[in-house]
Amino acid sequence: MKVYNFSAGPAMLPVEVMQKAQSEFTNFASSGSGVLELSHRGKYFKPVIERAEANVRELLRLGDDYSVLFIQGGASLQFAMIPMNILNGGTADYIDTGVWSSKAAKEAVYFGTANIAASSKETKYDHIPARSEWKLTPGAAYLYITSNNTVAGSRYAVLPTAPEGVPLVADMSSDILSRDFDASKFGIIYAGAQKNLGPAGLALVILKNDLVARTDNAKVPTMLRYSTYIENGSMFNTPPTFAIYILALVTDWIKEQGGLKAVQALNEAKAAKLYAFLDGSDFYTTPVKKEDRSLMNVVFRTPNADLDAKFVADAIPCGLTELKGHRLVGGCRASIYNAMPMEGIDALIAYMKKFEMENR
Amino acid sequence: MKVYNFSAGPAMLPVEVMQKAQSEFTNFASSGSGVLELSHRGKYFKPVIERAEANVRELLRLGDDYSVLFIQGGASLQFAMIPMNILNGGTADYIDTGVWSSKAAKEAVYFGTANIAASSKETKYDHIPARSEWKLTPGAAYLYITSNNTVAGSRYAVLPTAPEGVPLVADMSSDILSRDFDASKFGIIYAGAQKNLGPAGLALVILKNDLVARTDNAKVPTMLRYSTYIENGSMFNTPPTFAIYILALVTDWIKEQGGLKAVQALNEAKAAKLYAFLDGSDFYTTPVKKEDRSLMNVVFRTPNADLDAKFVADAIPCGLTELKGHRLVGGCRASIYNAMPMEGIDALIAYMKKFEMENR
Repeated sequence: MKVYNFSAGPAMLPVEVMQKAQSEFTNFASSGSGVLELSHRGKYFKPVIERAEANVRELLRLGDDYSVLFIQGGASLQFAMIPMNILNGGTADYIDTGVWSSKAAKEAVYFGTANIAASSKETKYDHIPARSEWKLTPGAAYLYITSNNTVAGSRYAVLPTAPEGVPLVADMSSDILSRDFDASKFGIIYAGAQKNLGPAGLALVILKNDLVARTDNAKVPTMLRYSTYIENGSMFNTPPTFAIYILALVTDWIKEQGGLKAVQALNEAKAAKLYAFLDGSDFYTTPVKKEDRSLMNVVFRTPNADLDAKFVADAIPCGLTELKGHRLVGGCRASIYNAMPMEGIDALIAYMKKFEMENR
Repeated sequence: MKVYNFSAGPAMLPVEVMQKAQSEFTNFASSGSGVLELSHRGKYFKPVIERAEANVRELLRLGDDYSVLFIQGGASLQFAMIPMNILNGGTADYIDTGVWSSKAAKEAVYFGTANIAASSKETKYDHIPARSEWKLTPGAAYLYITSNNTVAGSRYAVLPTAPEGVPLVADMSSDILSRDFDASKFGIIYAGAQKNLGPAGLALVILKNDLVARTDNAKVPTMLRYSTYIENGSMFNTPPTFAIYILALVTDWIKEQGGLKAVQALNEAKAAKLYAFLDGSDFYTTPVKKEDRSLMNVVFRTPNADLDAKFVADAIPCGLTELKGHRLVGGCRASIYNAMPMEGIDALIAYMKKFEMENR
């Protein structure tokens, strides 16, 4: 049976990527070894990491003033690395739109002050606070946002800009490479790979080079300085080679789909279809303000928690897996990243209709 | 052609492990998804990480007073995490037996004092300094060793003990699970996975629980505190699931081989055969003091650097790959971890004989 995996991450990868990785798993490029087994400094892996970087640069149209870094520790280590490198006792503004931006702000306090310039916490993160309501700090070290909120199911439909001279820092873990945008407006863009880019165990960090001048090398250990990754092409120590290889395949695949404009169009169509169904139903509800809805993580509920659990469980034998909401908020969630085809949305809607008929 | 991969890491994995991982790459445990795509909190991955931990505990006979942690960032991040968590402005003794212990000591200075209690640097790390010559600090925060030196090709044939009350900390990246030893003598044992355990992008950290009391939670960010990993079963954030899965398969395989005593016996036989050949040759030389020779990384040279390069290049069409010495020291190196079968040693020796005849 065809399985559609709606996991929020680690998440479904493109079928073509999985098949290619499987076919060459034990013998990459006729080397006689798998990618897992090859030296990161050898002739087989070097073109892989170079292609991964080149693909990211091409898709996001990055200039030479940006570095593309591959760092371990996930987005959660970036919560600390960012202030460790560029806060230096100053004040940074955080827009609190969900559990992840809240966690990020908590790590900043080791290195300076995190000002919550706006928050939708009081209404359970059901919207993105309007730009006009943000209480920004004059001369802030940076302005921090989470572009898409995996748990709350919201996103910035229009990505904001920061005041002149203030670097805009964005956690794009759950919507990186899902839509086209102007990366040159950002100081740092980063993303845990396990949603739209590849396997868990890798964070992609895109950094404007002039920011490294802020790091106090006398205080920050080698592996936690961005400059270490820039100066060594992300290979000061052994990088997570297999994860980088999968990221190269995934970004190859995005290019084959027609690039960010093409995947964005499909993502918009997928989400529009699913939200239209939800909006037309008096059985399912979705809590997020319409204009702030995530195109990647569609959160919804049935009339009660028991039915939510039944919805998730009964979906599995139908080939629709991982529909449970995040453990912090409950309910149901369908994560529909780049790799989810329209057929998965159609199958989900068909199941939702059937479940509603049988359980209303 | 059968290929024997002598890479120092990422390194050859057991053939059975690679074949099993390939066969279930796109459909793990009939889930319809690959391990790469499965939620770390779901029902499929949970038994995997539990088995990985249980295998490590069983093979090393660890008591409940130890935690087994899976941390990203490789051994190099541990160079900083160890002093960040347990040094606290004190003095730690480092035994400098090669490039990696030297790098580790350099990261300690951000958090206290690293006393080089002994070093073989002056003789190009050709031996392990005798225990009687170590100038230890009374009341040191810990004593730090590198059990096997991947670059220099040496090891502690007998693992040392620390003075009463001083935790012994060991980087075992290149010989973990290659020999039997008494883990209860150690405060921290850690290893980058990409040599004897699995893929790059994962460090196994075995920590005596009482050490976490030393961490100053007000100073150390969440992802850099050992307590975070202990309290959350290494899942405060998304762990490197695929790497942990491969580690589970590799440790399954070690158990199937008969455990540490059995792999140790084979490792001793493999190294004995290769060193016996080197000792009987007046063409090849090996620089390491006989009793300190590594069983994992056999370093050697031909009569000159040009021949070294030819030796490495000509080996590849014979199916013997990655024989180049570390870029810092040159020469040749055969890394023969657990996964290298005796047939690989035989093939290497046959090639070495032929190369000598044709090039002397």
